[in-house]
Amino acid sequence: MERFMVRYRLSGDEAEAYEKACDICLEQTVEFPGELIPPGFIKDQVVGRIEDFRPAGAGGFSALVSFAADTAAAEFTQLLNVVFGNISIKPGYRVEDLILPDSMLKRFKGPRWGRTGLRGRVKVEGRPLLFSALKPMGLSSQELAELAYKLALGGIDLIKDDHGLTDQSYAPYHERVRLCAQAVARANQETGWSCIYLANISAPHHQVLERAYYAREQGAGGLLIAPGLVGFDTMRTVADDKNVDLPLIAHPAWLGTYVMSPLHGISHRTLFGQLVRLAGADGTVYPNFGGRFSFSREECLSIVAGTEQPLGGLKEIFPCPGGGMSVDTIPEMSEFYGSEVAFLIGGGLFKKGPDIVENCRYFRSLVE
Amino acid sequence: MERFMVRYRLSGDEAEAYEKACDICLEQTVEFPGELIPPGFIKDQVVGRIEDFRPAGAGGFSALVSFAADTAAAEFTQLLNVVFGNISIKPGYRVEDLILPDSMLKRFKGPRWGRTGLRGRVKVEGRPLLFSALKPMGLSSQELAELAYKLALGGIDLIKDDHGLTDQSYAPYHERVRLCAQAVARANQETGWSCIYLANISAPHHQVLERAYYAREQGAGGLLIAPGLVGFDTMRTVADDKNVDLPLIAHPAWLGTYVMSPLHGISHRTLFGQLVRLAGADGTVYPNFGGRFSFSREECLSIVAGTEQPLGGLKEIFPCPGGGMSVDTIPEMSEFYGSEVAFLIGGGLFKKGPDIVENCRYFRSLVE
Repeated sequence: MERFMVRYRLSGDEAEAYEKACDICLEQTVEFPGELIPPGFIKDQVVGRIEDFRPAGAGGFSALVSFAADTAAAEFTQLLNVVFGNISIKPGYRVEDLILPDSMLKRFKGPRWGRTGLRGRVKVEGRPLLFSALKPMGLSSQELAELAYKLALGGIDLIKDDHGLTDQSYAPYHERVRLCAQAVARANQETGWSCIYLANISAPHHQVLERAYYAREQGAGGLLIAPGLVGFDTMRTVADDKNVDLPLIAHPAWLGTYVMSPLHGISHRTLFGQLVRLAGADGTVYPNFGGRFSFSREECLSIVAGTEQPLGGLKEIFPCPGGGMSVDTIPEMSEFYGSEVAFLIGGGLFKKGPDIVENCRYFRSLVE
Repeated sequence: MERFMVRYRLSGDEAEAYEKACDICLEQTVEFPGELIPPGFIKDQVVGRIEDFRPAGAGGFSALVSFAADTAAAEFTQLLNVVFGNISIKPGYRVEDLILPDSMLKRFKGPRWGRTGLRGRVKVEGRPLLFSALKPMGLSSQELAELAYKLALGGIDLIKDDHGLTDQSYAPYHERVRLCAQAVARANQETGWSCIYLANISAPHHQVLERAYYAREQGAGGLLIAPGLVGFDTMRTVADDKNVDLPLIAHPAWLGTYVMSPLHGISHRTLFGQLVRLAGADGTVYPNFGGRFSFSREECLSIVAGTEQPLGGLKEIFPCPGGGMSVDTIPEMSEFYGSEVAFLIGGGLFKKGPDIVENCRYFRSLVE
């Protein structure tokens, strides 16, 4: 029977960590006293299986546990549940890696556009993409659209709603999206470039798809969504929907807690790389090292690895480091990330000088 | 302008903690350099405001921050985002309490049944409800239905799918739900009691409501859902749907990480009490103290407080402690919780003896 594997990091001494590995095998599947599990199919196939167990590099132990593919029922929600549902409630368990067989990966459509598709959309080859955000919250739709126009005029490739802009009275969703999409189209006519505006569709359950369709109708070139707020499978639904058919960028809001501890939660690579990609995002926003958040260089590189490691036939996606980046760090970041990256600079772009169009041009000059 | 408040616990010395409080005000709203925020409406109203700041009892500091109601745009997803979206990615911030004005609470329908409604449904007054689960995963639909029959015959009030049962090939959703609902109805005819079967509708985005409707059609008396897997607003959508109209119990899968650290995340009360209740659950499952999980007595009591504290006109809901409870602890737990509780015993019920019906009768005798 087809199985998939999860590598966990388990805290404690060897006996404690091994006990945790055994616990995973039961807790994540049958959730039943070990001694009462019926022999045969359930004991042999349904219960998780420790495939490997060894000391982990930096303390604790590493356990590779396999699960029958059918425990996940070909549902993304249930895959998450088998990987980390109940044990999320126990201290000392961390998901380090997810290894799905090709037969399972085939069931995921994954990113519709990926790096190549998104590059084709914005017509940019061989350099990092420039990514910015419409802010601050509280501006009117007209003001945000004017800002979108300036950012596009200055040469930004991807302009997203700030992730906190949803449907506030001062910039209601439909009005804002219509005006911002128009503003970016107007700038593109002047520049000849192909900047896209990404509308934030993090929204109540039954409005997510409706907002995605509306954004497309109005000429938005992409979408932003926070899987932590709406659910990973909601993001997947948007990505898989033929009638949406727009590049989709994932935002990390609400998800940070999972990566806060080296002893618990989910690895940066799995959460912001693998899971986001399985759920169909074409880019993954995360806080860059050196900004106002706390990720390390190694953690950022591990996310990059998750965006491009072989994953069945699933497309590679863009790492989108952001969170307090300044324009002045771009040369260093270009060296660090190479060209397969979208640099997200929001507030930092405003800090550079009073003329936002000039700031964008300077930003662009640094990557060209 | 109408505002709501969040109490955060912030780590560090006084200066560091105050810096964190100031950071919340910006990061959760405008996400913009403080010095560049336009004066007037945005600075005065949109940016968060520190209403109180003082040492917290057990180290760190407590900050009460208010936000304009409109920042949350009357959306549950965006409320979560303002409360803990971006700062989830920074260490040392913990949401302790959520205080919404009545005008905001009025927009939430909240639990449809609540404690009183659920008691009416199972016709049980004055004692704890008895709650159990169908397991282990790997049994066929027929076997699970037979088990449901026995649990109902023995006097269990609420019988849920184990939260890992979704749509696996060995017990597909539609078949399982049909057979289990029938089995419980048959037992009720024999006993004269009003046990309900709760179908697990934690499922892909577009199947959640469909499964809820199907469960209702087939005579299931309630639903189980894991908001961590499907999204809090998806749970709210089910609760608010007139065509579902069944009691809904929330399961904590995938959410445990938020409560793993006293220095980061979300308090037990807010996560498993307030948020679950705002999102419309009639009961909240959480790991009891003394079982195989790690919650303390105080943390369990704080969840109970969240289930019953005044929250506009929202109904009180059932705390459902579970997770490794044994039948033998019921007298102690009854003393601890009183009668407004649903005791969830899964595996422990099987451990008591070989005759599951007898085990249930014994469980029931302890609360009657």
